[in-house]
Amino acid sequence: MIEEAVAGGWEIEAQFVDPKGRPVAGAGGHVLDLAPHVMERIASTESPQPVLAVVRNPQTSIADLVEPSLVVVCDRVADPGNLGTILRSAEAAGVDGVVLLAGSVDPFNPKVVRASAGALFHVRVVVDVAMHELQQLGLPLVGTSSHRGTPYTTSDLSRPFALVMGSEAHGIDDQLPIDEWVSIPHVGRAESLNVAMATTLVVFEAVRQRAGG
Amino acid sequence: MIEEAVAGGWEIEAQFVDPKGRPVAGAGGHVLDLAPHVMERIASTESPQPVLAVVRNPQTSIADLVEPSLVVVCDRVADPGNLGTILRSAEAAGVDGVVLLAGSVDPFNPKVVRASAGALFHVRVVVDVAMHELQQLGLPLVGTSSHRGTPYTTSDLSRPFALVMGSEAHGIDDQLPIDEWVSIPHVGRAESLNVAMATTLVVFEAVRQRAGG
Repeated sequence: MIEEAVAGGWEIEAQFVDPKGRPVAGAGGHVLDLAPHVMERIASTESPQPVLAVVRNPQTSIADLVEPSLVVVCDRVADPGNLGTILRSAEAAGVDGVVLLAGSVDPFNPKVVRASAGALFHVRVVVDVAMHELQQLGLPLVGTSSHRGTPYTTSDLSRPFALVMGSEAHGIDDQLPIDEWVSIPHVGRAESLNVAMATTLVVFEAVRQRAGG
Repeated sequence: MIEEAVAGGWEIEAQFVDPKGRPVAGAGGHVLDLAPHVMERIASTESPQPVLAVVRNPQTSIADLVEPSLVVVCDRVADPGNLGTILRSAEAAGVDGVVLLAGSVDPFNPKVVRASAGALFHVRVVVDVAMHELQQLGLPLVGTSSHRGTPYTTSDLSRPFALVMGSEAHGIDDQLPIDEWVSIPHVGRAESLNVAMATTLVVFEAVRQRAGG
């Protein structure tokens, strides 16, 4: 994971190293050796890795997303596993950034970092964004819905847009000025797809359409 | 979850009911009232639901999949969360069945049942299948690969096929007679998509193509 942060260009401030581990080469930052069994007490997992790094939050803002063509906006997505998966899909699909509206789970929550499998360090994430700031993206807001809108496979997703995904419990806030709705037609029960799977499908459909596939 | 099993036509053999709960109406089976705090000791979660049901395993076999046109085959998929998500996608895409080769995680593992969000009860799952039995499906075997094959969006997925997904650690067994390979082109790192996300993308691409979208 620390290698991923370094590969993603993140600044490592410090590495804390268990006697069983070695600092990550080339990562930089202060290296501090821990006494035996200290890591088990300070880490958040039962079987921690032998090196723990403190990384500087790069403090991305919407202005850092220059002429974006595909952005994922999370409106209060609360489950760390879902946000981690969204970050993986976002990275894999090559989105320009992921914007988290206020009320979403903290992307630096250890469960999100682990569920993202390192993707957090490779995709721009803008946190704690207010609804009115979204207009700075200069993109139409496309919301997903189970019950209204054009099927995502027949919508034109080749043009630039921001995909808005709603919270697991409440969906998309009524106050959000959604420009267009898309739906994901499926058989089975209403709740059969979760927010992370839906995000994966729509961003990869955008990739497909943009490749002229 | 018990309601899902009933809705999916599963036979409930017994319901164990905590004093704080009520048996699920119409579920059938013996109803046994538990003394206070017994549920906390027998359930596998920290905050168990107040009703626990014993359901009869329907013992599906490959022969029960009649003229299938879309089947997901898991070759030793080991992570319960991944299999649960695969079952959700399979249900949502309306596949005819999910076939688990020997060595895959037990679909009745409580973590799979929970991750499937009830989908386990709505999709046919065939367990403990040997490699040579796959020919009984009468379907070409399509394997996914990160490094070979046609991109999944330009492959013809409108014809009947069985999608083979490999284990997280080892991929698809070399002995499996794969007829055709498809790849999921993505930017970012090699490991950016996991087996569950890849399954979701391919089965929904099949749905898209079959709808003529």
